[in-house]
Formats: sequence, C-alpha cells, structure tokens
Amino acid sequence: MDELEICYMSAGGLGRLLRQGEISPVEIVEAHLSRIRDTEPALNSFITLLPEEALAAARQAERDIRAGRYRGPLHGIPVGLKDLFHTGGIRTTSGSRIFDTFVPSEDCTVAARFREAGAILLGKLNMHQFAYGPTGENPDYGHMHNPWNPELVSGGSSGGSGSAAAAGQCTITTGSDTGGSIRIPAALCGIVGLKPTYGRVSRHGLTPLAWSMDHPGPMVRTVEDAALAMNVIAGYDPQDVASANLPVPDYTAALTSDIRGLRIGAPRQYFDAPLDPEVRRSVNAALGQLEALGAEVREVDFPEFQDAASISTTMLMAEASACFRDLLARDGASLYEPVRLRLEAGLFISAADYLRAQQGRALFDRAARRLLDDVDLLAGPTEPVTAPPLLQQQVLAGEQEIGTVAALTQYTRPYNITGFPAISVPCGFSAEGMPIGLQLAGRPFDEETVLRAAHAYEQATEWRLRRPPL
Amino acid sequence: MDELEICYMSAGGLGRLLRQGEISPVEIVEAHLSRIRDTEPALNSFITLLPEEALAAARQAERDIRAGRYRGPLHGIPVGLKDLFHTGGIRTTSGSRIFDTFVPSEDCTVAARFREAGAILLGKLNMHQFAYGPTGENPDYGHMHNPWNPELVSGGSSGGSGSAAAAGQCTITTGSDTGGSIRIPAALCGIVGLKPTYGRVSRHGLTPLAWSMDHPGPMVRTVEDAALAMNVIAGYDPQDVASANLPVPDYTAALTSDIRGLRIGAPRQYFDAPLDPEVRRSVNAALGQLEALGAEVREVDFPEFQDAASISTTMLMAEASACFRDLLARDGASLYEPVRLRLEAGLFISAADYLRAQQGRALFDRAARRLLDDVDLLAGPTEPVTAPPLLQQQVLAGEQEIGTVAALTQYTRPYNITGFPAISVPCGFSAEGMPIGLQLAGRPFDEETVLRAAHAYEQATEWRLRRPPL
Repeated sequence: MDELEICYMSAGGLGRLLRQGEISPVEIVEAHLSRIRDTEPALNSFITLLPEEALAAARQAERDIRAGRYRGPLHGIPVGLKDLFHTGGIRTTSGSRIFDTFVPSEDCTVAARFREAGAILLGKLNMHQFAYGPTGENPDYGHMHNPWNPELVSGGSSGGSGSAAAAGQCTITTGSDTGGSIRIPAALCGIVGLKPTYGRVSRHGLTPLAWSMDHPGPMVRTVEDAALAMNVIAGYDPQDVASANLPVPDYTAALTSDIRGLRIGAPRQYFDAPLDPEVRRSVNAALGQLEALGAEVREVDFPEFQDAASISTTMLMAEASACFRDLLARDGASLYEPVRLRLEAGLFISAADYLRAQQGRALFDRAARRLLDDVDLLAGPTEPVTAPPLLQQQVLAGEQEIGTVAALTQYTRPYNITGFPAISVPCGFSAEGMPIGLQLAGRPFDEETVLRAAHAYEQATEWRLRRPPL
Repeated sequence: MDELEICYMSAGGLGRLLRQGEISPVEIVEAHLSRIRDTEPALNSFITLLPEEALAAARQAERDIRAGRYRGPLHGIPVGLKDLFHTGGIRTTSGSRIFDTFVPSEDCTVAARFREAGAILLGKLNMHQFAYGPTGENPDYGHMHNPWNPELVSGGSSGGSGSAAAAGQCTITTGSDTGGSIRIPAALCGIVGLKPTYGRVSRHGLTPLAWSMDHPGPMVRTVEDAALAMNVIAGYDPQDVASANLPVPDYTAALTSDIRGLRIGAPRQYFDAPLDPEVRRSVNAALGQLEALGAEVREVDFPEFQDAASISTTMLMAEASACFRDLLARDGASLYEPVRLRLEAGLFISAADYLRAQQGRALFDRAARRLLDDVDLLAGPTEPVTAPPLLQQQVLAGEQEIGTVAALTQYTRPYNITGFPAISVPCGFSAEGMPIGLQLAGRPFDEETVLRAAHAYEQATEWRLRRPPL
C-alpha cells in the first residue's frame, strides 16, 4: 500500500488491518509524517508537530499489538487535537502566542481517553485564537488554508483540524464547537464533523470559550470513524460540571444503513435564508437521496430560526468576555485585533441583556424540541456558501451579500443554543470544486440516529472518495 | 370551642374535626374573619381580604362535606396567599400600586391546587414591593408588623404571610423565597416556614423576582401543616421550566418523630458570623435537644459560606433587574425608592460579573453538596438576631453592628444558591419575648428528612404552644 493510500484510509479500515497485523502503526505514522511534510507548507494545519513522540508511541503500539495486547479500534491510529485540548507535557497554545510556552501538567479527558485507547498523537492543530471566530485566521501561528484551494479558508475555529483530516494528515482530529467551529471547517473542507449533544463529551481540560455552548467532538473522513471516536471519547466525567451521567451506546452498532421510515424535517426558513444556489441544489439532492433510501422528508416550520443569531451572539460574547476578562486586562495588546475587539465589546453586555437572551434561548429551545416531537432529525445546509477567500469580510450568498462571520454561522448556531447533536457530512461540490456539507441534527443524546442517517447517506454516495488536489 | 381556639388550631387538627363533621368550614372561616378584624389594625397582613368569597366557599365546603364529598385534609381550611401568587378574578398587586387594579385571568398552579383540594382563600397577603427586600416595608399598602411586638418588623418579603399565620389570621399561608423571604418572616414571627427544593413547587403564575433562586413554599404553625400543604402543592408542572419531573412522596408519612442516627452538621462558620448571644444559646440548646432525640450532631467546616452574600447579591440583583427592566423604564417613579435604587443598580451589573458569580455559585453548590455526603442535614440559626424595629438600617448582632438586610439574609441566602430544601422552626424566645428560629437544610428533593427532623424537634418542645400577645 502506498503512503497516500494509508493516509486516506479510515480509522475503521486501518483498524481492521492493524488488528490482523497486516499493517504496522510505525508504517502508518511514517506515512502520515511524510504526508504532513508534503502538505503542511500549503495548509499550516499544525501548531505543534510531535514526530518523535508519535514514532515512539507507534513502536510501542507495534510491540503491544504483536504481543497480543490489542486495545481496540483506535490502537495505532494517528490523531491530531485542536490546540485547546490540554495535553500533559505538550504545549497547548489555544492558538495564541500568549500561551506559546504553556505546558499543561495533565491531559484533558478527551486526550487521556484517546491515549488509553492506544491512539497516537501526531500533534496539536491550528485554530483561531481562543477559538473565537469561524474563518480560520491566526496571525500568531499563520492562517489556515483549505486543502481544496489554499487561497480559501479552511473554516474555523477548528480550521487546522478540518484541513488535517481532509488532506490525510491525520486519521482522526478533534474540534470544539461553540457557534459552529466543528461543523464549519468540516463542511468547507469536505469531511465529517460531529458536534455531540451538550454534556456528551467531557470538556474537562479544554480552554473554554462560552461554557453554556462549548462542545468538543470528532472531525474525520467517514461517519464510521465519527462513531469509533465517539465510542472512545463520549461518556460521563465528574470533572466537567455539564457532563451528563447517562449510559453511552456502541455508536458503530447504530450504523445499520437502514433509514426506512425515518422522519426528517427540513425547516423552510433554512431555505429562505441567504443561500448559494449551488449549495441549495446539492442539499436538495441530498434530501432526495435520503428519501430514496426510505426516509420521509417533509418541510417543517421553524420561525424561531430568525432569532438564533441574536440569542447566540449575546450569550457567546458575554460568556467569552467573562472567560477572558483577566486575560484581556493583562495581555489584551497581544491578541489578534478582531478577537480583542470582540472580547472588549462583550464586556459592555449587561447581565440584564444576557438574561434576556437566556429567556430567548429557553423559548428557542422549546420550539426546536417541539419540532423533534414530529420528526427524528432536522436537515439543511451546514453552510450557505462554499469556502470564501481568506480575510474576505463579505460573501455572496445567493443574491445577498452578507458578513462572512454571519454567513458561516447561520445554520450552525441554532444547535449550540439547543445543545442538539448535529453532524456535517459531505453532500457535493461546487462547479469550482469546493465541498458542500449537509447538516443533520437530532434529539439530545440521540447521536445514534444522527450517525445512522449520515452513514446511510454517505454509503449511498461517492463524495467521500474524492480527494483534494494536493 | 371559642373562636381563638379555632384560629390557633393547626390544619391537621381542624381537618380531623372537619372530616368527622364536628366543625363546619363556615364556623372556621367566621372565626378567622373575626380574628382578622381584631388584629388587622395592628398587623396589616392583608392587601386584599375576601370575606364574602371565603364565606361562600365555606358554605359550599360545608355542603360538600356533609354530602360525603370530602376532598381531603385541606378541605375547608383557611388559606392566605402572598400577593404575588396570581389568582384568577382576584387582583394581584405584587405589593405595588402599579398593579393595584391588575386582575389575572387564571390561578397560578399553587392557587389552583389549593382550590382543588378544597382550601378556602381568605385573601391576598402583604409583601415587599415585588418581593424585593427582607424587612417587610411597604409604603403602598402599609408596612407589615410583627404580632409579638408591632413596633418590630415581621420580616420580608413574605411579611404578611408570617404575621397572618403567627397571629391566627390564616391556618396556612404561602410565601416565596429568593434570598430568605419565607424563612425570615417565619423565624421572626415564630412560625414554621419551608423553602422546598428548587423545582419542587411550581412557580407558574407567580410574579418572578430572580428566576434561578425563586422558591414558593408554605408558612404555617406546625410542621405537620407544612407537610399537609406540600402534599397539595408539590409536584411537576410542565408550565414551569424549572419544575422537576420527579415523584412526590406523602410528606406526612415522613413525620415519624424517630431521628435516631440522623447525622446533623452544624457549620462552624455559622457560629463565627455576627450572631446575637440569645440566638446562639437557643440554637445550641436546640442542637442539644436533637442530640437528646438520638441525632448525631457534629461540627462541619463550610468556609465557602463567606462567599454566599456576594454570589447571591450579584445573581439576585442582575436577575431582578432583567425581570423588571421594562417596568423600571415605564413606572420607575412609582416604586418605593429603595426598591427602585436596587433595580437601577442591578442594570449596571455586567454579564461578565453575573457569569463570574454563576461560576462562584457552581463552586459553592459543589462544596455544600459535599457536606451532605457526610451528614443528612445542615443546621444553624435562621436569623442572627430577633426582629429589629421597622425602618432601622443597622442591627447589633453580638458585638457587631451590621446592615439589617445583610443580617436578615445572612443564613438564608446559602440555600437559595444551592436550591436545597430548608425549614425554619421555632426554637425559643429572647428575654424580650421575640421568637428565634432554627434552620435545617437537607439534600435536594429530600424534604422528608427536613420535615421529619423539624417535626421531632417541635414535638419534643413547647415553643409551638406560645401565642403572640395580641
């Protein structure tokens, strides 16, 4: 198998070979390090690369697997973590030079679980400073670039995770999603990104952005890999106050490909919003494909969608400013100016404003939950546009020119408000060859239905087989 | 039985006679209306008195009971509701002339449940404007007065409920408690006040003050009556977003009087705080009595107690200002000045400040829950002082002169932060004849243990038999 083939295999595929001894973790890690060397100049996915540590871990995994100590499906699989997942003994910058030399003493829960599962950490991935912003800019460690066209954004804030998974630099990456930061780069880079239910995956040891809306989750190239990653990282953690003490299913068991009778609601307001016609066509075709697979797709009414941006913006800005108030006072001058300005602006939000937004959130949440009384999933585009050029402030979405930040978070924010599990899965390409994502959201703690539908769709289409021209 | 005897009987006692047909609801209501006429000039417990409606309801109850349609222990029992419990067709002022003519179209859930149980509404009880403040002042409907000495405060904000129950004007009253507003007047007026667990009793149809800390509950003269009232008003209500969907036990079944082996923790910080020596003596004697009954009383360490005031003040002021921002803009000039000033000040609390307080709250809550890993109840004084004079800004608590508001909420606020169930039960009198309260707090949704311990203590002592000199 040539190195590129290895780099584009899924964790599921590699795991089957690893378990049989048909491939070595060392071979896998070497292939990825070589791929990273080739593509990193164009992409800039990594803040910290760990070639020696990864090779040492690969040699250990090789010995363990040979000796019959196979730990399970992620043993020997190369993983990259967004650089706000704290890693014991490995610097964790949160995307800012302010923390350029910060070395946590302990792993975050997600990193510890990957480590216990035998996954191999290749490095720490590039991101927006403190995860604040959806486009993938970073003046401190360099902007992130889209593997399908490096002049375009990879999306953010988990932009390095998106480009690393899409370009075969890592088999599994992680992101965190407060306003869309997993799903945005997943859609723009043409991979699968799952924002699990709020409370499903522990945030212990992650740099927070906005407590009430922060969700860590996997970014991968296949839905099966999302399920495999979730099997490792999901579950109760008493060290995260928001962690849900609920049983965790076997997510791979949910991937039956049978979605007959599944009720999927497509909110008409998603299609009335600013929306690029190519994206609209791809998403409508995907809904047709889901119907062809036996799902019942119906239009649903979600008028509260129009309030998502104001509710989410108020809450996110207020909570982010509460998180970073001391940092702003001490090191504000070292921040990327748009990040600093947003943090400063957030300090002017009054508690009364915040609480009004919280009331709006409760009403929004109730309305969204009611929709899920009648359908099993909500579907629509993940993004209204394909990846725009770096640093471009406005995008054309259909006939409307709107702000890039507003556009990229338009469809993702609602599920940060509600905490519903939501996935972005590739559903097509624009004429210019840029990926398009379908978003599916489900009931709280029903990742299984979300994954099952995404997997059925993915298996019925060929989008996952395309590779970026890199 | 003379009228005063009827007025000082408990709901439990009256109910036993009513069920047997040995007393008529009409006789009971007439006795109470007569008692109200005699005492109301000194107390000013009522904002709205409903003599005709109550007599009509009493006649109906008499017919129903005679005809064998006995509804249960509260059938025919005279009840008064704090005037922020909305009552369909009956004006509900929330203590402010701004709502002097406001007549809700529907009963709040608590009022509806009392009505269904056959309780008879005597009237709507005086309170602080919008329940904001712990002393019992009200310039619009007149200040509230303590039955044990009308020159002293009844406590607030449910001051009318405290004086009405203590003086035999009503058998059962209700209060709402955001920083202590049930327990403060209960302690200062010498009655039993239960703040149930947050989410245990529906707030649907109550004027809010601070959503995250508002608790409705009963104010009565015996612990058995608190249990009887809870049997009617506790339980899930989908119309209150914070309502807990949990089964409700029979609270009277918990009143076994057997507290052998019960572990009671007395936080040493409660006794290091400013505290009147007479109160200290009474509370220590009560702890000794609980020990004599077989409980294990131990000192526990609760250093976080010192943060309760700042956490609770920030949250309460911010939430109250969010609730009443529009009212303040429209009718601010009509508000009692101290209430208006506090609402205005709350608008200057930033979302970041509020969120910091929320983080402090999470830590405080965690520490308090840990204490309840080792003990079943937390015990201490309800108030550091007995009732101070009306409008007096400072009180002497032991050797320290401190603000009246700070003093009266000193021990009550912690359990609004945590949402624990907490009761105040009479435990003695000062040399000047003013009541002293013992506070017992338990684990969330464990009102049974709280009631059981309070009942065992009450039955072993004679405090409940004393009557105010009125």
